[in-house]
Amino acid sequence: MSPKQPDRVHVTDVVLRDGHQSLIATRMRTEDMLPICPQLDAIGFHSLEVWGGATFDACVRFLKEDPWERLRSLKEALPSTPLQMLLRGQNLLGYRHYADDVVERFVARSAENGIDIFRVFDALNDLRNLETAMAAVKASGKHAQGTLCYTVSPVHTLAMYVDQARRLVEMGADSIAIKDMAGLLTPYAAEELVAALSEAVDVPIQLHAHATSGLSALCQLKAIEAGCRHIDTCNSAFAGGTSHPSTESMVAALQGTGYDTGLDLEALKEVGDYFREVRGKYAAFESEFTREDVSVQINQVPGGMMSNLANQLKEQNALGKIREVFAEIPRVRADLGYPPLVTPTSQIVGTQAVMNVLTGERYKSITNEVKRYLLGGYGHPPAEVNETVRRQAIGNEPVEEGRPADSLSPEMTRLTGEIGELAESEEDVLTFAMFPDLGRDYLQGRRDGTLSPEPLPSAEPAERPVTEG
Amino acid sequence: MSPKQPDRVHVTDVVLRDGHQSLIATRMRTEDMLPICPQLDAIGFHSLEVWGGATFDACVRFLKEDPWERLRSLKEALPSTPLQMLLRGQNLLGYRHYADDVVERFVARSAENGIDIFRVFDALNDLRNLETAMAAVKASGKHAQGTLCYTVSPVHTLAMYVDQARRLVEMGADSIAIKDMAGLLTPYAAEELVAALSEAVDVPIQLHAHATSGLSALCQLKAIEAGCRHIDTCNSAFAGGTSHPSTESMVAALQGTGYDTGLDLEALKEVGDYFREVRGKYAAFESEFTREDVSVQINQVPGGMMSNLANQLKEQNALGKIREVFAEIPRVRADLGYPPLVTPTSQIVGTQAVMNVLTGERYKSITNEVKRYLLGGYGHPPAEVNETVRRQAIGNEPVEEGRPADSLSPEMTRLTGEIGELAESEEDVLTFAMFPDLGRDYLQGRRDGTLSPEPLPSAEPAERPVTEG
Ligand SMILES: [Co+2]
Ligand SMILES: [Co+2]
Repeated sequence: MSPKQPDRVHVTDVVLRDGHQSLIATRMRTEDMLPICPQLDAIGFHSLEVWGGATFDACVRFLKEDPWERLRSLKEALPSTPLQMLLRGQNLLGYRHYADDVVERFVARSAENGIDIFRVFDALNDLRNLETAMAAVKASGKHAQGTLCYTVSPVHTLAMYVDQARRLVEMGADSIAIKDMAGLLTPYAAEELVAALSEAVDVPIQLHAHATSGLSALCQLKAIEAGCRHIDTCNSAFAGGTSHPSTESMVAALQGTGYDTGLDLEALKEVGDYFREVRGKYAAFESEFTREDVSVQINQVPGGMMSNLANQLKEQNALGKIREVFAEIPRVRADLGYPPLVTPTSQIVGTQAVMNVLTGERYKSITNEVKRYLLGGYGHPPAEVNETVRRQAIGNEPVEEGRPADSLSPEMTRLTGEIGELAESEEDVLTFAMFPDLGRDYLQGRRDGTLSPEPLPSAEPAERPVTEG
Repeated sequence: MSPKQPDRVHVTDVVLRDGHQSLIATRMRTEDMLPICPQLDAIGFHSLEVWGGATFDACVRFLKEDPWERLRSLKEALPSTPLQMLLRGQNLLGYRHYADDVVERFVARSAENGIDIFRVFDALNDLRNLETAMAAVKASGKHAQGTLCYTVSPVHTLAMYVDQARRLVEMGADSIAIKDMAGLLTPYAAEELVAALSEAVDVPIQLHAHATSGLSALCQLKAIEAGCRHIDTCNSAFAGGTSHPSTESMVAALQGTGYDTGLDLEALKEVGDYFREVRGKYAAFESEFTREDVSVQINQVPGGMMSNLANQLKEQNALGKIREVFAEIPRVRADLGYPPLVTPTSQIVGTQAVMNVLTGERYKSITNEVKRYLLGGYGHPPAEVNETVRRQAIGNEPVEEGRPADSLSPEMTRLTGEIGELAESEEDVLTFAMFPDLGRDYLQGRRDGTLSPEPLPSAEPAERPVTEG
């Protein structure tokens, strides 16, 4: 992170990662990123978020691009700007907990291929799921950003966030990110939270707030007034709705004030003109569910989760039960100890809420994911879970109190053996580790010379990779 | 205006006027407004802006609706909510200065047909152009809101706005509107301006700020903190871009704070669902020029003006000169005494700037509008004009120093005679007064039973009425 300047606000632009992940289902191709890199690199951003999140999945699944190759190309094209990624703690960029050796190798390779700043988070804010990744980032000499997933519940108090931030700094965090994936944060809550965190820790605070409910720019302004000096914004061509505040408008808002970002609006505008053209190419991936929607401020259920549930109910001819399901969600969430609603917890809570309503009896049927969750398989929930529900789900099975990854043996050797000669590098082994089937198919296709990206434009509704914002 | 409550923020929703004027060329039909009126009326808005601006023109020109009939229908459908209109001072809703008797009758009829709050403005902030209209509003017993058109120039100082606000209050203003039609206002400038105005006058301050550059919600938040308690917002279905901050997000932002609007988000969301359907019907009137665009923050030239100039230059095969024209605009504006760039001054300045560039010699050719402007025909410019340019334009002709309307004789009798039996009411005479040709055609068509609205949807690009934001 650049030397701490007391007033200037530092901007991370997320157009190459979260921007297109939020608005066009993570479909932007490397070929559409590279031509604008010289201009992007000249802007003087604090960093560019370019990798991680769902981009790895989308590269392998849909675009048939090597995600590592994308990273190397971007690093070469953006020599002056720190590159940033989003990493799901012990889950890395996959959908299970990995053994520590995989986490260590993944972080080391990411650093070697070009990542300078690692934003590390866990869906439950169980910091034990961040430990190995944070240590690996430090070992690589890169910037480790610890993350607080923001949510609202009786246990998510200022004191709890402050305590977590302190522990992240003890863990070596060079900065703290507040991650409001659902648009739950409000301007005066942001001000209060940033003030408390700034008071408690000496590292910079960075605000990542999705614009879903239309409040994110307001949250950033109040956060800045409270001491936040690092904000995530997105070039206006991919801003707003389920994405982020626009870079241009935040730069303009602060221009000429003590918070001036120092970035040149005219240069940013040219970048916007480029990305607006690019966005047109991906029109098939636009969705009405990415527009601004204040719903999450009404019932704390993220917009994406509501549309998923509506689809689930429709398939079962039970759309009429949707209000009951919405009412059931906060009850299930309370039973599960108030997890933030983000991948994978939003699916876990949502699916169980649907079952509770459709079977006509709460927890008559319990999903395997809820069982795994109540066994401690995802880590510690933020609050105590409902013991009656837990016993109903897992009977007398003992709850795993340890760090989930402690029960996992090293697996790099096994993975290397399994993928065999299809892997031409350790990066390839890690790609296979993230997505056993997809990864193998990808590497096989590369060997056979049969890779080709999904057709574009497509008239059918786009498949969307699992995203965590 | 409701009894002054020190903290609660009062919301005016502009979806029925400025929202669709800004985003779909003022095309929303009364038939699409009435079905949602019961819900809108129950929300508890401070007021609903429903009339004036370009709506009168669009009704007569494109929709073949009687604008007065629209007003009466809305009044009946919205019995509990004060109705608001935008009035262009001595220009009323037409494109010339009217004699005082026309202004008086127009205001009286607007009040009788349902308007409760009149927002009165003049493009040059020449308050003499507001006098008759303001007096007429007071005479009708309605709420007179005096307006400051916001712009940026060496003479548009805080002191100047404070002085104008004081004079508006002396003129009888029940409240003061800050009208930022171009998206020029920035959050900390808004805070400073509102603080100065609140200090200087005792009436409420209302902020009308277009979202063009993405700053309007931020401006409102800082304005509120500085004492503003009345904001213009637009239902989310017609918010953002060249329209306004979304009602839902401003309500959510203030919810639970000392500024709480008291409005129900769930009810607002249902209104939004309705208007999103309606917007789809008018897809043919959407334009890429209504999206968020930070340009005005770079060169102080409103986005709409830039696209008009680009078209003008393209027609003359001179698009390559556009940067020279953009550079010339501030010079012409300075020569003309820094008028705010809004209808009609934006056209006056823009067209002269084009001529100055294309003829290769500044003011070699001077438009009739610039001559009229320099003769004092629009009123007093905010600052001294360039005397050399003035003499070049009008030679030794004397400058009219008086109030423009002082030179106009009463004209209601003449107008009534000219339109004759086609007018079935004084309202019809006033419609004819606003638009001599269009108005006559409309009234003739009504008599002949040949009126029909323009076809919808149309594939051709929509004609846009002259708008002033
Ligand atoms: Co995100
Ligand atoms: Co307006």
